[in-house]
Amino acid sequence: MVALDNGIAGIDRPTKGLRLHNTLHGSKERFFTRDGSRQITWYICGPTVYDSSHLGHARNYLSFDILRRVLEGYFHYNVLYIMNVTDVDDKIINTARRNHLLSKFLENVEDTTQVLAELVKAFEEERRKQDKKVEEAKLELCNATSARQRQDLENNLKQEELKSDKLSQAFASMKEKEAVLCKLSKEQGIEMLLEGGSAAVLASFLDNIQKAEVSDPAIFRAHAARYEEDFFDDMQALGVKPPSVVTRVTEYIDVIIRYIQKIMERGFAYAANNSVYFDTKAFMDAGHTYGKLNPSAVGSMGLSSESESDFLTKDKKNNIDFALWKASKPGEPFWESPWGNGRPGWHIECSAMASDIIGSVMDIHSGGQDLMFPHHDNELAQAEAYYDCSQWVNFFLHSGHLSIEGLKMSKSLKNFITIKEALKTYTARQLRFLFVYQAWDKPLNFSESVMKEALTKEKDLQNFFKIVKNYLRKGMDGGTYSKGLKGPQWLTSDDKELLMALQIAESEVQERLEDNIDTGGALLALLSLASSVNSYIDKKRDESSRPILVRNSAEFITKMLVIFGLSHARDDEIGFGSDATTSTGSQEAILTPYLDAIAKFREDVRAAVKEDVDIKGKVMGIADRFRDYTMVDLGVRLEDTANGSIWEMVDAQTLRNLRDEKIREAQEAKCKSLQSKLDRKKKDLDKYESALEDPKNIFLKQKELYSVFDANGIPTHDIEGKELSKKARKDVEKRMKKAEEEHATIKRKLEAKEIDLDQIKCDIVTLEKQLNEF
Amino acid sequence: MVALDNGIAGIDRPTKGLRLHNTLHGSKERFFTRDGSRQITWYICGPTVYDSSHLGHARNYLSFDILRRVLEGYFHYNVLYIMNVTDVDDKIINTARRNHLLSKFLENVEDTTQVLAELVKAFEEERRKQDKKVEEAKLELCNATSARQRQDLENNLKQEELKSDKLSQAFASMKEKEAVLCKLSKEQGIEMLLEGGSAAVLASFLDNIQKAEVSDPAIFRAHAARYEEDFFDDMQALGVKPPSVVTRVTEYIDVIIRYIQKIMERGFAYAANNSVYFDTKAFMDAGHTYGKLNPSAVGSMGLSSESESDFLTKDKKNNIDFALWKASKPGEPFWESPWGNGRPGWHIECSAMASDIIGSVMDIHSGGQDLMFPHHDNELAQAEAYYDCSQWVNFFLHSGHLSIEGLKMSKSLKNFITIKEALKTYTARQLRFLFVYQAWDKPLNFSESVMKEALTKEKDLQNFFKIVKNYLRKGMDGGTYSKGLKGPQWLTSDDKELLMALQIAESEVQERLEDNIDTGGALLALLSLASSVNSYIDKKRDESSRPILVRNSAEFITKMLVIFGLSHARDDEIGFGSDATTSTGSQEAILTPYLDAIAKFREDVRAAVKEDVDIKGKVMGIADRFRDYTMVDLGVRLEDTANGSIWEMVDAQTLRNLRDEKIREAQEAKCKSLQSKLDRKKKDLDKYESALEDPKNIFLKQKELYSVFDANGIPTHDIEGKELSKKARKDVEKRMKKAEEEHATIKRKLEAKEIDLDQIKCDIVTLEKQLNEF
Repeated sequence: MVALDNGIAGIDRPTKGLRLHNTLHGSKERFFTRDGSRQITWYICGPTVYDSSHLGHARNYLSFDILRRVLEGYFHYNVLYIMNVTDVDDKIINTARRNHLLSKFLENVEDTTQVLAELVKAFEEERRKQDKKVEEAKLELCNATSARQRQDLENNLKQEELKSDKLSQAFASMKEKEAVLCKLSKEQGIEMLLEGGSAAVLASFLDNIQKAEVSDPAIFRAHAARYEEDFFDDMQALGVKPPSVVTRVTEYIDVIIRYIQKIMERGFAYAANNSVYFDTKAFMDAGHTYGKLNPSAVGSMGLSSESESDFLTKDKKNNIDFALWKASKPGEPFWESPWGNGRPGWHIECSAMASDIIGSVMDIHSGGQDLMFPHHDNELAQAEAYYDCSQWVNFFLHSGHLSIEGLKMSKSLKNFITIKEALKTYTARQLRFLFVYQAWDKPLNFSESVMKEALTKEKDLQNFFKIVKNYLRKGMDGGTYSKGLKGPQWLTSDDKELLMALQIAESEVQERLEDNIDTGGALLALLSLASSVNSYIDKKRDESSRPILVRNSAEFITKMLVIFGLSHARDDEIGFGSDATTSTGSQEAILTPYLDAIAKFREDVRAAVKEDVDIKGKVMGIADRFRDYTMVDLGVRLEDTANGSIWEMVDAQTLRNLRDEKIREAQEAKCKSLQSKLDRKKKDLDKYESALEDPKNIFLKQKELYSVFDANGIPTHDIEGKELSKKARKDVEKRMKKAEEEHATIKRKLEAKEIDLDQIKCDIVTLEKQLNEF
Repeated sequence: MVALDNGIAGIDRPTKGLRLHNTLHGSKERFFTRDGSRQITWYICGPTVYDSSHLGHARNYLSFDILRRVLEGYFHYNVLYIMNVTDVDDKIINTARRNHLLSKFLENVEDTTQVLAELVKAFEEERRKQDKKVEEAKLELCNATSARQRQDLENNLKQEELKSDKLSQAFASMKEKEAVLCKLSKEQGIEMLLEGGSAAVLASFLDNIQKAEVSDPAIFRAHAARYEEDFFDDMQALGVKPPSVVTRVTEYIDVIIRYIQKIMERGFAYAANNSVYFDTKAFMDAGHTYGKLNPSAVGSMGLSSESESDFLTKDKKNNIDFALWKASKPGEPFWESPWGNGRPGWHIECSAMASDIIGSVMDIHSGGQDLMFPHHDNELAQAEAYYDCSQWVNFFLHSGHLSIEGLKMSKSLKNFITIKEALKTYTARQLRFLFVYQAWDKPLNFSESVMKEALTKEKDLQNFFKIVKNYLRKGMDGGTYSKGLKGPQWLTSDDKELLMALQIAESEVQERLEDNIDTGGALLALLSLASSVNSYIDKKRDESSRPILVRNSAEFITKMLVIFGLSHARDDEIGFGSDATTSTGSQEAILTPYLDAIAKFREDVRAAVKEDVDIKGKVMGIADRFRDYTMVDLGVRLEDTANGSIWEMVDAQTLRNLRDEKIREAQEAKCKSLQSKLDRKKKDLDKYESALEDPKNIFLKQKELYSVFDANGIPTHDIEGKELSKKARKDVEKRMKKAEEEHATIKRKLEAKEIDLDQIKCDIVTLEKQLNEF
């Protein structure tokens, strides 16, 4: 492909456009937006906040974070990313209530014997329940009607049997502890007895008996709020971008009630016994399809365990109908509704909240694979019933399931890894490397070996950047490109090959990302480019080379890593960017001038206060200079507002210009004020000096007005020799009298030193000098 | 457009795709790449490196840098950006040789009179040349055949006439200096004489006479190398991304010779008198078009002054033929060729070098508008002749011309602003703001008022980021998004409006950039979004708001500024990012807590001083707490020494331990001191209380020592009934006397209130209480 004589041949790979695996049709489809614009509306099923988030959540939210970043950063869509938070739900209610009841029980317990006795009863009860579940799972598997259903149900049975085993182990281990109890304090004994899952069994047992006693809604609210905060903290720690909008169920109860009402109006839902159910038969009779995503799961009890599809109730018209509104039971929080006190079903929340923000059609809906049925299928049915349409979601994306060493993660299976635990072993970037490398829509078995693979990719790239940076530091003199271009620039065949490697990588990345956002394939293309660059540097070590070509390749790799969220480099940086945990070396270098400034500031303040003379002005001066000079040179603008000092970082030159402008203005104002002072002084001097003259002279001087004067200097005839009128005569006499009075006053004041002409003259000289200095 | 009940309506603006103004056809055309891939090959005419680059260059290279960044960052093309450097050319040769000859002349000159005499001759010669140019320009204008040609030629004449005026002025000003020469040293005199353009006139004059004497190729090479480095330094200072590949003419002489040979083989060029000319007639006869970009300019002498189209030579077949290879003349560097010693013509360089890297068809060719004819038209002709094709370049982009206060920039017109000069007045970002705001393909008249307009845009955005950052610091607790999401999240109509404003801005930016990369229009859309955000913050100041919505909008604005090269923020930062001078991107993140601390410190100091009560203690207390708590938590140890405050970075925990240790020690010392005070008080109390007893009783109490007493209470017999010895008797009498004296003294002091027993008792209680508190 390298054409030495005739330029670099074009990469003959026309783009095919982005294709995404749309679970609605089970195939890769050309992506489009609902209106042909670059705006994507995306609704992602968020967490039910009842416990700490685990690696399965990390997989789901990180994978879609990566997809979102690629759509925004690579395909330049603008994404409106909406995530719900389910903060009212059976799991939350049960967990909150059980925790509450367990705490209360432990507060009032007499001794460990009492705890032990309750525990034995609790385990017996749990065993009965679990045995029943296994029986049911077996029975259902026998009746499987399709291969897909059979597989789902087999997994379900396997899971239940394993839980059964773990329960037996937990009971055995608890019983073993009985012998040592006598050696422990009450607190120690209780702690030991409740280890290893016993606490949950006991809490569930207590709940069965006492649940109706719990009615304070604050218990449920506090529990949900705590785990919601915990979830978002985990997301931030993983580097997941925050959603554009968060919809919290408890804030949308009204919206949800209205949504249910409209579905009822359309005839697709009915109330019964203070609950409301979705009428699946009416829905299908109207020509809709129920169970679009997983048709084979419809009607399965095992797969609907979380489906609001209480199979035992007699209120439902059809077995597969599910609740939109659930009448409140004792020990549950509730809201008022046209159907009595109750709360929304799980599925209706998403349909109602997504519709409220996005409307009647959305571009992307995503969630974990395990939500396909019943949650997403019910969501689709509800929205189609609400809008009376046939397609509410254009692209349904499902992230693959994460299992741990082959098993579904579960607390009772003891293979539950929380995000916080995972982040103790791996960095957020390393986890992200895993999910960038693995296909987002395929099942992923988390193990040490898959992590090792991901870590190798990170290490290879770290090594690559180390080599490139060292090479560029020598070859480009720290990045000055006139230095980097000093050597010959014509392209040798090695150079053209490297240029070609970059173009191939660029094309390959495009092709991979267009193919269902195959970030793993794109990553391999980047690693292959990195290895070409390494060979080039190796080969050219002692010869002339083209640093700019190396830089271009490293920049492309960096740019892609930034898009994947693996790097936080600036647009003009190479590599992973500075970490949150920066090495102290460079951090100190950055901080040194700032800290020097702080130190100096303190010193000045202290010194000023020590002398204690005219202290206020001094300290204010220091504070002002700190703001106007020290901080300005550091590129920091401090502003004293009514609410305290605020700051922002601005480039130093802009700040200096602003400051100088202000100084100039202040000087001009000062100048003006000096000038007006001077004018006033001069006027005063004039006034006093003329008043000191002999009043007789004031008319004598006015030879242009008068021709004849009497002995007192009062004019008698005007300039034309005409005698002054009586009125005119009176007027000049009055003026003469006034002048005489003024003369006397000034003279008295001068003698009494009330006026000091010398001082005024001195002031004038000083002011003139000050003005000249400007 | 806001749909409260039914979500946010889609923005109904399907994208139309990118259209670019293609000068080849004089219209906006849908952009495509030659092979339908995302790879763009782009050749940009680089500098002829003979002098410092000026604002016109800045306009050209910055505008195309912005276009390149938008194509890469927004439309996600991969751009191969090739720039040539013309390092052999008439201008370089002449300037280098003239500078060399002038230096030599000045080295050997005797006195200023000699310089003056040469200058007068030089000015006379220059005057003759300039007069001729004006005459020629007038003549050509008379013969103009089209409106476009007439306009071009009118501008040409205006320019020449202005140069004529400036020449007269320069001569007059030089002559004026004659009178003062005697007062100056030789060096000063020469310096003064050569000011104001005289140096260039003299150098040109010397060159006319002596040019043949200069033959050392190093003179030309050094000159070009110096200004090439200078050019790339300027580009870097302006933040222009380096090219992917630089082609330097002197490194491509072989490639150029082979290129010429092939054109000759095809019959489109001929050799004559050691030169080679392009055969325009043969070219047109073969069905090609000559002068595609500016047909009306073909044949114009005035517009072809830099066209290698020596109109006086008899060697050419047709008047409009131009040189591909120029036989060497004396005083010029040369290379061997099949046609004798010589050098390539200006136009052939670009055709040959671009073809060498890109091949037979390129996506984009760009350059300044003034290069359209003859340079680009000749390039096209050469490449079409070489490849025997009809289209070598798919998109020809020309940046608009930059004039200064209405005139073309020119040294002889004294309106020449170098990039370095411009960067003293404005920052690189401010200049970029200008070119982002102004349409890249329109003429631009540089003036203070257009700069002011650009500066306003920058200031508005700076202000916006300041407001947003302060708002987010409060609302999102420094960016932790679980904190930012703590309040209610359902969307009010204000919230939905803000969300809509973001979507409108996103669409508008898309539409503007698709329309010939109208960055100015896109910038206005961003400013309008910023103003919506400002209003939102203003309105929501005291109410609950959604920080995440504000953050999303600020992030979009930041992202676009980064694409335009106006910001260097990281992908997780908001604003303009830290200055280019720092290596780490997260500088702001690192500094934030420190700067917050400084701001708070200043605030406290100012507040304390304002109240003005017990000022010293207060300020000292603040300063101490700043040292012992604020700074300690930041991992900084401040120490007040005789030489002022010094600091070092230590981990915070160590510092906290040290501080607490010091506090403990101080407390222990305090404790000790309190204890000893208490002991002293108790001792005093004992002493006084015993002294207050009736002295008679002091021996009476000592029943273990004495058995018989006299009336005064003085013992006479010891415990065993034995009479006391005389000595012992004397001793007890003495002690009794002392006790009586002491009793009297204390009694007197008590009466005189010199001793206050109650106070002592009270002190003891207080001290005991204080001690208990530790």
